Amino acid sequence: MTTALSSIRDMGLRAKKAARVLRSLPTKRKAAALRAIAAQLRARQGEILAANALDVQAAEANGLPAHMVDRLRLTATSLETIAADVEAVSHLPDPVGERTEVRTLPNGLSAQQVRVPLGVLGVIYESRPNVTVDTATLALMSGNAVILRGGKETVHSNAALEDALHAALKAQELPADAVQVIRDPARERMLELLKLDDCVDAIIPRGGAGLHRYCVENATVPVIVGGIGVVHLYLDSSFVQDAGDIEKAAQIVLNAKTQKPSACNALDTLLVGRAALPKLPEVVRPLLRAGVTLKADPESLAQLAQAGLDAQPASDADYGTEFLALTASLKVVEGLEEALDFIAEHGGHTDVILTRDDAQAARFVQDVDSAAVMVNTSPRFNDGGQLGLGAEVAISTQKLHARGPMGLRELTTSKWVVQGDGQVRT
Amino acid sequence: MTTALSSIRDMGLRAKKAARVLRSLPTKRKAAALRAIAAQLRARQGEILAANALDVQAAEANGLPAHMVDRLRLTATSLETIAADVEAVSHLPDPVGERTEVRTLPNGLSAQQVRVPLGVLGVIYESRPNVTVDTATLALMSGNAVILRGGKETVHSNAALEDALHAALKAQELPADAVQVIRDPARERMLELLKLDDCVDAIIPRGGAGLHRYCVENATVPVIVGGIGVVHLYLDSSFVQDAGDIEKAAQIVLNAKTQKPSACNALDTLLVGRAALPKLPEVVRPLLRAGVTLKADPESLAQLAQAGLDAQPASDADYGTEFLALTASLKVVEGLEEALDFIAEHGGHTDVILTRDDAQAARFVQDVDSAAVMVNTSPRFNDGGQLGLGAEVAISTQKLHARGPMGLRELTTSKWVVQGDGQVRT
Repeated sequence: MTTALSSIRDMGLRAKKAARVLRSLPTKRKAAALRAIAAQLRARQGEILAANALDVQAAEANGLPAHMVDRLRLTATSLETIAADVEAVSHLPDPVGERTEVRTLPNGLSAQQVRVPLGVLGVIYESRPNVTVDTATLALMSGNAVILRGGKETVHSNAALEDALHAALKAQELPADAVQVIRDPARERMLELLKLDDCVDAIIPRGGAGLHRYCVENATVPVIVGGIGVVHLYLDSSFVQDAGDIEKAAQIVLNAKTQKPSACNALDTLLVGRAALPKLPEVVRPLLRAGVTLKADPESLAQLAQAGLDAQPASDADYGTEFLALTASLKVVEGLEEALDFIAEHGGHTDVILTRDDAQAARFVQDVDSAAVMVNTSPRFNDGGQLGLGAEVAISTQKLHARGPMGLRELTTSKWVVQGDGQVRT
Repeated sequence: MTTALSSIRDMGLRAKKAARVLRSLPTKRKAAALRAIAAQLRARQGEILAANALDVQAAEANGLPAHMVDRLRLTATSLETIAADVEAVSHLPDPVGERTEVRTLPNGLSAQQVRVPLGVLGVIYESRPNVTVDTATLALMSGNAVILRGGKETVHSNAALEDALHAALKAQELPADAVQVIRDPARERMLELLKLDDCVDAIIPRGGAGLHRYCVENATVPVIVGGIGVVHLYLDSSFVQDAGDIEKAAQIVLNAKTQKPSACNALDTLLVGRAALPKLPEVVRPLLRAGVTLKADPESLAQLAQAGLDAQPASDADYGTEFLALTASLKVVEGLEEALDFIAEHGGHTDVILTRDDAQAARFVQDVDSAAVMVNTSPRFNDGGQLGLGAEVAISTQKLHARGPMGLRELTTSKWVVQGDGQVRT
């Protein structure tokens, strides 16, 4: 905390300079830097936990809700997990240098499209110190410099983590400016970062819809919007024809809603084909037992009441809403086509169909335009780790550049490399 | 022109509806639509040229510069070229449906990343009626709906072209709303389009730096900035060692600057390694003969004067400037490293090295972070057609989503398709 506050513009210029060094680093040196970071996190455990304790103390004194204090708190165990995750990223395949097009043109020119780092990233996130390290290491491993702006409750933790990151970079003879934390929590500094388009190549916000909207409305740097959008599951009557499938449907719905209710890929709205309605009580009973509140339309509400199950009447606002909690909405539709129309109006994140009819599955996969479309499985699999992409920096729900989990590859762009011997255009 | 003006929001909602139809069309039907468009352009030649004549007449009366009137004017020949170009696009490979990742996960889930159309594009461009047709057909062939906002001088031409496009779409039983022209030229309508982020997936501006800046500063829809940036060529002394290479260098520099001076990939700044300076007069003599004005630093100015060649003294503002005309700036650098530092400060579009030293070429290709980096050839090859990508909608000079020429593939995004049999996340 002894570092003088830098102007955001200075930080951007220094990041740009560091990015020029990073973009030419061989994979080996990036991996070595990550191992050095893991070592520093372990060596500085005492200082990091002490700094974090100050943040936790202040957060509790200020009445921060318990679940937010939990996300803020580091322990010896969680810090070790963070260090181990850094080492895991150091083993991921390096996308930089990959050739995505290789052509020889009729005039003899060789033209290749090659993956290169984006350059300088700006990442804005909540009060979660683990994200500071995760994001910094994903950026470094993909050859990018990064400017980090975490929640104001993490000011001491992030300063201690930045010190550890800088010590590791310096020990590896790499520019410390490759990772910079904005230590001034004022919103004006964030706004300056959003408008630094001659230095920063992409802004990645992580957090609620309000933060994303603020970035989209104020940034001149391109923004990758992530994690915002509703998750639907359409249950077709073909999937409730026998006890085994009914049990599978119940387990998928339970997993979709309760495995991590605060996640952006958790279920929001269950659409039930009318012919499947008689089996609805069996499908949602485990959900209700797990403490989920269902907001149901009149038809499904009546069906549940008949089976002695409790639900609340849904209002219009319960559809197209991300709950991020143990609540889901429920609606009866005539069949697949009505479900598709409904999803076309409200969808965008992850949408699932449960069906035994291959033609229906194909129609759903073709028509639904979401970051991920799934058949007969849980939307919780829309995740970089689960899809085998390694760690992710965010889940993009916009269409430009990246859609779905953003791993190392999504932190790169491309350039054309054209080589000739005197060719000119005629 | 009898169509009532629609609100931009209505246009967006109708485009979104049309996009849902387009995204599932097989290649055959998209190609047939393009052939129908070509046929309509030919069948309506009289009406289109008559509408265009009104625009040309008004533009001349309003004193529009001659080169802009030229770009506005259609003739029977240019209209036939446009129709033939539409047919050429109908033969390009369809990127939609291409699988870019195919994985089977350890739990048995099948996960594929599939190319899908972006959805709804908003394209803002100059008073060039050919762009109306080119853009509409590239959008349709890649399964996208498009809202077009051309320059105000093309209002009659664009209305006639929109009528032709709609007639073709209707004849093919496709939604006419797939292509919509904003007929109200007021800037407020453009601003509404830039903020229509719940309907439009990407804004592609084509035009000067001012338009791009306006879009970046005002849009909440993601913007793909294109064609803005400086083009450098570094001439190393290893490329002026014999008469053959000097002649090649002269021809490349001539082609780079004069083959189409108004193009964004035309040369702006020639950097000369100090050891190559004695050969500079031979390299630039054809340029000067072609009427190019050189803005030179004192050292190169003296060298040219000694050879009896005229140039003007450069000011600071002549570096980092896109000339888009028969002007280029000239500067002596010590060697490759100084050239790289200079390009790092000013580059971003297309940068070229002329060298016979492979290590230098490799260093240049690695270090320069531009949309295209070239060795021993003309920057004019940074073009979709020249690189074998087919027609292009723009040349992107930003890093997110697309960089360099944007063909059909760059008008797509991806979605994950995950198929299972009851798997849940643990």
